[in-house]
Amino acid sequence: MKARILLRQLDLPYEAVTVDLFRRETRTPEHLARNPDGRVPVLETGDGTLIPESGAILLHLAEDTPFLPAGGIARTRVHQWMFFEQNRLEGDLAMARFIKLTGRDGKYPEVFEHRLARGLDALATLERGLADGRPFIAGDAYTVADIALYAYAHCGGDAGADLASHEHVVGWIERVEATPRFVNDLAPFPDL
Amino acid sequence: MKARILLRQLDLPYEAVTVDLFRRETRTPEHLARNPDGRVPVLETGDGTLIPESGAILLHLAEDTPFLPAGGIARTRVHQWMFFEQNRLEGDLAMARFIKLTGRDGKYPEVFEHRLARGLDALATLERGLADGRPFIAGDAYTVADIALYAYAHCGGDAGADLASHEHVVGWIERVEATPRFVNDLAPFPDL
Repeated sequence: MKARILLRQLDLPYEAVTVDLFRRETRTPEHLARNPDGRVPVLETGDGTLIPESGAILLHLAEDTPFLPAGGIARTRVHQWMFFEQNRLEGDLAMARFIKLTGRDGKYPEVFEHRLARGLDALATLERGLADGRPFIAGDAYTVADIALYAYAHCGGDAGADLASHEHVVGWIERVEATPRFVNDLAPFPDL
Repeated sequence: MKARILLRQLDLPYEAVTVDLFRRETRTPEHLARNPDGRVPVLETGDGTLIPESGAILLHLAEDTPFLPAGGIARTRVHQWMFFEQNRLEGDLAMARFIKLTGRDGKYPEVFEHRLARGLDALATLERGLADGRPFIAGDAYTVADIALYAYAHCGGDAGADLASHEHVVGWIERVEATPRFVNDLAPFPDL
C-alpha cells in the first residue's frame, strides 16, 4: 500500500501484481530471485530493475520530488523515522496485527503479548514525535516518512491499540489522508 | 558500534557517551528529549543536532563519502539492505541474542523460539543476498549497508545461529573486517 500511495501521488502509471504470501507464493524460487528475503513488495521499474523493501522503494521513487528533501538534516529526519518504522512499528505493531488477524493470538499468546506491548510502545514514540505540534513527522512538509508510518499506524486498532488516546497521531492521520491524491486502499485481510 | 566503526573509518573525532539501557537511562525525560523512541544510539553533531537511529546516523555521516553511492540504483541497494537489517536482522536475530544473553530464554521460551526462528530466516536471506559472489552486500564497494548488517550478523552465534554453515556470510564478514581502519569494538554484554 505504501508504494501504491506514492505512485498515485506522483501520478506514475503502475500495474499491481499480487504475490500471495498466504499461498506461499512469496517463497517460490521465482520470487526469491526477485527478492532474496522472499517477501513483498518488490518494485519492477520500466527497465526491469527489481527493488525490494517498501522503504527503499519509497526513497527511490521520491528522489528529486517534493516527497523527499534534497539533503542535509531534513533528509536525515526522513531516514530516522523510516528506520524507526521498519524496526519498531512494522516490526512489532504490524506483527501483532498479523498474529491477531490470522487468529494465532490464542495459539501463541506469549508471542502476541510481547509483540503488542512493544508495538504499543512504538505508537507512544510516534505520539511523542508529533507532540511538538508539527504537521508531519519530519517537519512542515509531507514526505515518504509519513507514508511509511501511516500504513501500519492507521490500522493499529486491528492489533488492539487504542488510537483515539493518541491525539497527535489522530490529527496527523487526518492530515496525511487529506494530502492531494491520497488513497487508502489497504487490502482487506483474507478470510483464512 | 555501527556509528563508531564508520566514525573511525572516516577519521572523524568523536566522544562516546554511555547511556545504559540496563539502568533505564534510555527512558529518562532527558534521553527521551534526545530520542522520542528512548533508545540508543543518538549522534550529537558539532552544532548540537541530535540524530537517533543507527541507520540514519550512518547515512548522514556517509553522505559525499566513498561509503555511500551518490545516487541511483546503487544507493537504492544500500537502502534496501539497511531497511532489511532494521526489520529482520536487528528486529529478530538481535532480539533473540538479547533475550538469550539476558537469560530470559528460559522465562519466555515461546518468544525466544519465535524471534530465533525468524532471525535464522533473516540470516538465510543474507546468505542468499551474497550468493552471487559479490564482495559486499550492495555490490563491489564496501558501504554503510555492510557496516549495518555486520553488527548483528557477526555475533549471530550468541543467539544460537550456526554462522559457519553460511559460507558466503563467513567470507563477507572476513572482507568487512579487512577494510581499512575497521575495528570491532562490540561492548561486552553486562553480567546481569
